[in-house]
Amino acid sequence: MASTAITHIGTLITNTPSLGHGPLGQLHDAALVIEDDRIAWIGTTSQTPATDSHHDAGGRAVIPGFVDAHSHLLFAGDRTAEFTARMSGRPYTAGGIRSTVTATRRATDAQLAANLTAHLAEMHRQGTTTVETKSGYGLTTADESRALRVARAHTPETTYLGAHITAPEYADDPDGYVALVTGPMLDACAPHARWIDVFCERGAFGADAARTILAAGRARGLLPRVHANQLGPGPGVQVAVEAGAVSADHCTHLTDADITALADAGTVATLLPGCEFSTRSPYPDARRLLAAGVTVALATDCNPGSSYTSSMPFCLAVAVREMGLTPDEALWSATAGGAAALARDDIGHLAPGARADLAVLDAPSPVHLAYRPGVPLVHAVWRDGRPVPPAP
Amino acid sequence: MASTAITHIGTLITNTPSLGHGPLGQLHDAALVIEDDRIAWIGTTSQTPATDSHHDAGGRAVIPGFVDAHSHLLFAGDRTAEFTARMSGRPYTAGGIRSTVTATRRATDAQLAANLTAHLAEMHRQGTTTVETKSGYGLTTADESRALRVARAHTPETTYLGAHITAPEYADDPDGYVALVTGPMLDACAPHARWIDVFCERGAFGADAARTILAAGRARGLLPRVHANQLGPGPGVQVAVEAGAVSADHCTHLTDADITALADAGTVATLLPGCEFSTRSPYPDARRLLAAGVTVALATDCNPGSSYTSSMPFCLAVAVREMGLTPDEALWSATAGGAAALARDDIGHLAPGARADLAVLDAPSPVHLAYRPGVPLVHAVWRDGRPVPPAP
Ligand SMILES: [Zn+2]
Ligand SMILES: [Zn+2]
Repeated sequence: MASTAITHIGTLITNTPSLGHGPLGQLHDAALVIEDDRIAWIGTTSQTPATDSHHDAGGRAVIPGFVDAHSHLLFAGDRTAEFTARMSGRPYTAGGIRSTVTATRRATDAQLAANLTAHLAEMHRQGTTTVETKSGYGLTTADESRALRVARAHTPETTYLGAHITAPEYADDPDGYVALVTGPMLDACAPHARWIDVFCERGAFGADAARTILAAGRARGLLPRVHANQLGPGPGVQVAVEAGAVSADHCTHLTDADITALADAGTVATLLPGCEFSTRSPYPDARRLLAAGVTVALATDCNPGSSYTSSMPFCLAVAVREMGLTPDEALWSATAGGAAALARDDIGHLAPGARADLAVLDAPSPVHLAYRPGVPLVHAVWRDGRPVPPAP
Repeated sequence: MASTAITHIGTLITNTPSLGHGPLGQLHDAALVIEDDRIAWIGTTSQTPATDSHHDAGGRAVIPGFVDAHSHLLFAGDRTAEFTARMSGRPYTAGGIRSTVTATRRATDAQLAANLTAHLAEMHRQGTTTVETKSGYGLTTADESRALRVARAHTPETTYLGAHITAPEYADDPDGYVALVTGPMLDACAPHARWIDVFCERGAFGADAARTILAAGRARGLLPRVHANQLGPGPGVQVAVEAGAVSADHCTHLTDADITALADAGTVATLLPGCEFSTRSPYPDARRLLAAGVTVALATDCNPGSSYTSSMPFCLAVAVREMGLTPDEALWSATAGGAAALARDDIGHLAPGARADLAVLDAPSPVHLAYRPGVPLVHAVWRDGRPVPPAP
């Protein structure tokens, strides 16, 4: 088993309070040892044990790899014109999400896989070491299940989102579509998914349909998560909590009762600042969630319609600017918070036994991720104990 | 004279309407030829003339290099803690800009130059091919002039900003400081500067002092530009217009009379979205400026206090989100607009005879700079006809 040391880490964020100062478990002039795909040791540079190979971080900061717990990467097609029209204040009527569904259905497996892996590689180079991704642009049994089959070859965090919108073919029979999503489509998708998700929102799936869908998924061993309260107040968060969802995502429009329910249930609120940024929508109030004791995660929501960023550093900077998170809180939410939103205890922190997923920053402190917005500060990334290759 | 062709450009933005479609002079499946440090030819891939070497852009977009017409890169010291305190809602009383002045005075010439060139290299890799930068953290004759001497070795666009704040030593004698800025300090700085700038704002320099400073600079052959109307309404824009300034910068709080004055004088409004982003301040309304016929430029304001981004793509994306610019307008303002703000006709556009300064994007369209915020989309950069080396 080969061992590698990284030494002279200016600031090391472990997210393990027992290993360092403060809630982020911060260490200075730190070092760590990787064995195989795991962290084997953490300490100071001068105490580093002998290893087979050695990297000098030169005073750079090292953080746990970002955990992006919400993305939609199984798609084809182009929606640049729709974005341009929206940001130019021009009407746009051609297609929206339906155009992505059409293009995704037409794409070959190889095309879907190539688009997915290109986006994953882009994410990895930006410091993201775990990516959840969803189906939801197929909306037929065959198209949803092949999307998840393609995804499962590249990440264990796959989410069945047949209930993204009602398939166009069922526009006049939404109950029929729910029956499909909870019946044959679920049968075909469950073997390739860890999670089940539903877009519970006015115009998409109501509370009753969402409950039915989540219960059907749970009966097949899938873990629930919910798109909740994005566009307006509604039952999404309450449905998520009742269903035992690990995470309620978006959480833009919450009542006090919603927040209490999240806190009492220990349901993570996964906030998606890229979506509000790219749709000129109001941002959720992360401060209010933290004050109530809710666990907050940050994710990109990377998708071609409402949030085509793949950058966790960007989302972190926007969350500090717009959602009231401190730089430290935003970093925690983008790493340990994401791990909580995926019910994972092997990622999102650095400690002996944790997965060797980390990012080396071209900065002395991870505060620079918010202090220097937009600057590509990710110098190097290790994922599963191996360096991520640079861009071709 | 060696010639190089770049072919198979998916979308080429020339900012030269006669060469292509629309105000950005857009071409598809385009090509260009570089000879020495200039563009020699622009057309379609199939018509490309024979050249000594050849690069295939593979369908990527090519844009003119960004022109960053406002930065403060002659500094030393660290203000991470101040940023953290501001974004955490904690009071912070230790130093602010004065701490940068103290650290900058203490720095050796070599340290100042190393910090400058590190930031310039970071900018170049992000697609910025021309950078204006200012003194203003020395505030003594010796420290201001050496900052400009250091800067002049790396960019022709150097700005004398002795009138950034009143030097601490002159706290009780602001008129004495204006006399220094317009006297011995100006004598020492003018040989190394193209521009003179003044921070005309309540608490900094008033209208009369600003007029005196700009007039003194003009008498020494320096071109005026002004920090105007950043923190509140005030005389800055009117002073800028009266002095014949090429650009009034910030322009956050403008009256209708200010906007009319800018439009009538042809003074560029250089907007600095990174500053509002990083200080949680309201954004200027670029739409209102464009509607009145004002030329709008975008720049980073890169400095350690109020805007530590060096990323023109980030500023462009924020300007689209927050200032009402369309993606095309923001791209124009970050390239041709910056050139106008620096009174330069050889940069900010691509056409035969223009400087061969350009960026190749990992995207089929430059709309992706706003559509995919935070994603490092700059694939390659050519500056003065030569490729910019990747990060070490
Ligand atoms: Zn989503
Ligand atoms: Zn400035």
